[in-house]
Amino acid sequence: MSDYDVIVLGGGPGGYIAAERLGHAGRKVLLVEADALGGTCLNVGCIPTKALLNAAKTYEHAKHGSNLGIHTSDISVDWTELQKWKAQTVTTLVKGVGFAEKKAGVTVVKGYGTFDGPGRVTVRFDADGASGSGPAQRAESYTGDHVILATGSVPVMPPIPGAKDNPHVVDSTGMLAVDAIPPRLAVIGGGVIGLEFASLFATLGSEVTVVEMLPEIVPFMDAELAPMLRKALGNVAFKLSCTVTAIDGGSVKYTTADGSAEAVEADVVLMAVGRRPAVQGWGAESSGLEVSGKGVAVDDRMRTNLPNVWAIGDVTGRSLLAHAAYRMGEVAAANILDPEAHRRGEVMRWGTIPWAVYSIPEAAGIGLTEAQARAKGGNVQTVTVPGAMSGRFVAENGVKAPGAAKLVYDGDTLQVLGLHVVGSYASEMVWGASVVLETELTITDLRQVVFPHPTVSELIREAAWAAKA
Amino acid sequence: MSDYDVIVLGGGPGGYIAAERLGHAGRKVLLVEADALGGTCLNVGCIPTKALLNAAKTYEHAKHGSNLGIHTSDISVDWTELQKWKAQTVTTLVKGVGFAEKKAGVTVVKGYGTFDGPGRVTVRFDADGASGSGPAQRAESYTGDHVILATGSVPVMPPIPGAKDNPHVVDSTGMLAVDAIPPRLAVIGGGVIGLEFASLFATLGSEVTVVEMLPEIVPFMDAELAPMLRKALGNVAFKLSCTVTAIDGGSVKYTTADGSAEAVEADVVLMAVGRRPAVQGWGAESSGLEVSGKGVAVDDRMRTNLPNVWAIGDVTGRSLLAHAAYRMGEVAAANILDPEAHRRGEVMRWGTIPWAVYSIPEAAGIGLTEAQARAKGGNVQTVTVPGAMSGRFVAENGVKAPGAAKLVYDGDTLQVLGLHVVGSYASEMVWGASVVLETELTITDLRQVVFPHPTVSELIREAAWAAKA
Repeated sequence: MSDYDVIVLGGGPGGYIAAERLGHAGRKVLLVEADALGGTCLNVGCIPTKALLNAAKTYEHAKHGSNLGIHTSDISVDWTELQKWKAQTVTTLVKGVGFAEKKAGVTVVKGYGTFDGPGRVTVRFDADGASGSGPAQRAESYTGDHVILATGSVPVMPPIPGAKDNPHVVDSTGMLAVDAIPPRLAVIGGGVIGLEFASLFATLGSEVTVVEMLPEIVPFMDAELAPMLRKALGNVAFKLSCTVTAIDGGSVKYTTADGSAEAVEADVVLMAVGRRPAVQGWGAESSGLEVSGKGVAVDDRMRTNLPNVWAIGDVTGRSLLAHAAYRMGEVAAANILDPEAHRRGEVMRWGTIPWAVYSIPEAAGIGLTEAQARAKGGNVQTVTVPGAMSGRFVAENGVKAPGAAKLVYDGDTLQVLGLHVVGSYASEMVWGASVVLETELTITDLRQVVFPHPTVSELIREAAWAAKA
Repeated sequence: MSDYDVIVLGGGPGGYIAAERLGHAGRKVLLVEADALGGTCLNVGCIPTKALLNAAKTYEHAKHGSNLGIHTSDISVDWTELQKWKAQTVTTLVKGVGFAEKKAGVTVVKGYGTFDGPGRVTVRFDADGASGSGPAQRAESYTGDHVILATGSVPVMPPIPGAKDNPHVVDSTGMLAVDAIPPRLAVIGGGVIGLEFASLFATLGSEVTVVEMLPEIVPFMDAELAPMLRKALGNVAFKLSCTVTAIDGGSVKYTTADGSAEAVEADVVLMAVGRRPAVQGWGAESSGLEVSGKGVAVDDRMRTNLPNVWAIGDVTGRSLLAHAAYRMGEVAAANILDPEAHRRGEVMRWGTIPWAVYSIPEAAGIGLTEAQARAKGGNVQTVTVPGAMSGRFVAENGVKAPGAAKLVYDGDTLQVLGLHVVGSYASEMVWGASVVLETELTITDLRQVVFPHPTVSELIREAAWAAKA
């Protein structure tokens, strides 16, 4: 008989939710985490950045509130205090996760776990608090009927000359811990992480330059809305189609689209070219686990190629979003609890996972972009309405502020295929679009949905009415 | 042959949307409005209050941002400039409505319309800009195959001794136009309008007291969440179960629950005891139109008792919300265009209209409260989760800030019957709950919906998982 029903390797959003769901269902669960519970998202990702971005928004609004009749001359940001608020937020929420696991009856061990093959995990308890490096003080092996692999991802550090061991160069974790707001910040990479930091520090007063290799920021965004978001981030300079060739101190050297060599000087250089599944160092190599180019290979029930071994979250490479990890954790848990769960919809529906960029302003979306829909074929129709179609948007931002909602739909069946928004509150309204896609609503159905007035979410309704239907 | 296919009496949200939809469908439409397009909502209701509340929120955040590291000592509000922003917002949006009507081919006349019976409307064009009072300069009668009555509502002025002709006493329209932020404001009525103004002026520095006759504010709110909202409005003093007996200058005299006489002194007294359907002065009395106690009687397709005469919006008394008026306008339009439209769902579903209170913080909801559900019978279950369950909520407001999400559901079928939220962004997230109720999702379905992380909207997901299912 195994020590546990399920062993979960990694206490990030995927791992801790899977453990919680299984614990509440009466299973004996071991959750292994080398660091603080909550993983990258809670400790050095989504949550701390949101604490900072909210403060930046407050600062921005107050500083530029004069057209609303709000005046202040001496507003300032105390970075140390802001860092304290951020740390306090993280500590509170990490404790919350610990409490939730306890409530679910989950056993949590703080140690560096390795996967020894189906049913077996070894945890190394280090003298230095389970860093995974240095000699183990003590190791213990556990058996479990099921093992869920949830080891997350790590920042990609591209082999740019001069990047390694350069004290000016930080990854997102280092960026969160800088001891002052840098006067000049260079961000390499115009994806979600790069943009959130760019927007944050530009708002707090840094001179920010984003260098992006591709011709547009946030490659997964709809091609009509991505440039709109870029223009909305008016306090950030963008160098698109520019390839970084070297970093020398705080000088980022790059080649432009037309081949000329340029450089941007910065005090801090944020490397934000992406993250990759953490498939090394915990036994994936020797266990016979199938690792595809992207991560641990899984099916839509989160099963790996090994019996009773599941993988969820970033390590699968299927989606690097915390809420996708939550759902993967739940799907794995449901299918462990009941082999027939997939018949009740307990499978990953990759097409109905929303995303959000928490820049100032925000962007969010779900489903197919126009380009993706056209690539699939069929009678693809789209409709885009400007932010000014929403009374609240105008009342809060003015009629000329950048913002829009776009619907992608099937011109024959009228089914909604994708929804994309740039503007305030985008992140908070997009869950409704998850429901729209999950329930396969049409433009006609959406028109009958009552939205509260006045809200920015009404842009979605305006788009539905502006569609050809 | 009639002059018009459809004549719409009243250019508020219901009237202008109905006219627009009919115009785009190729109908010849006359829209009659005595005042500015947009009605109460756009001119002296939802929109101007939201412009002011957003500025107040900016002020509040900046003023109390010190725990976020945001410091300012000299912040101030210039009421005149804020009024200018408000006026500019309204002007822009009124123009927008005019433009939308033009684009839809709708003929708009500015005059005071009266309903002469089925198919006939007379418009009086006054010298003073169509106020409806004073002698008409010129009158014109129009015929239409259909008439849509959309005359709106007016503030209730209860016969409280000393209220009439008291320069201290204003209604919501007067409150929007005060020439300075009053040092002391008394609000009679703790409904949505009263609360939004109370929250607005309290945030801007007024000493605000709300006197409410009932034992709790916002009577339509769930009885668990209403007191939570009240406590969240910590800068407002509430006198509950108190009946106003007289107003003397700026002194509001009231009797408390235990019968003792008290008074609150104020510079301005806002009368916000509600609004009533505007069923007088435009011909309802003499036309044979059935007017129930509440307003013009309609069925779920917005038909009145008279042939081809429809009524929509506040004048029906069925809902006094602008977005309900939109939908009523659309339902009337759809059923005018196609007598079979009701078979395609083009009927009012009164149970799936959301509401929002735009106080600081906000509240929003849809569907049945716990009490309403219990009154209907069956196996009613509820679940409430605190704001602290959302990482973003904690990152932005701290773990102790008031906030919650509550689900009311059927314990047998697990169908969601109601959703209620107190907290930031409530108004922007609640449209998703409209979709949940429209598509009759269960708690189990809702659990499978992916919400973006971290958002306050995730409280809904947390509630679904905390439910017994």
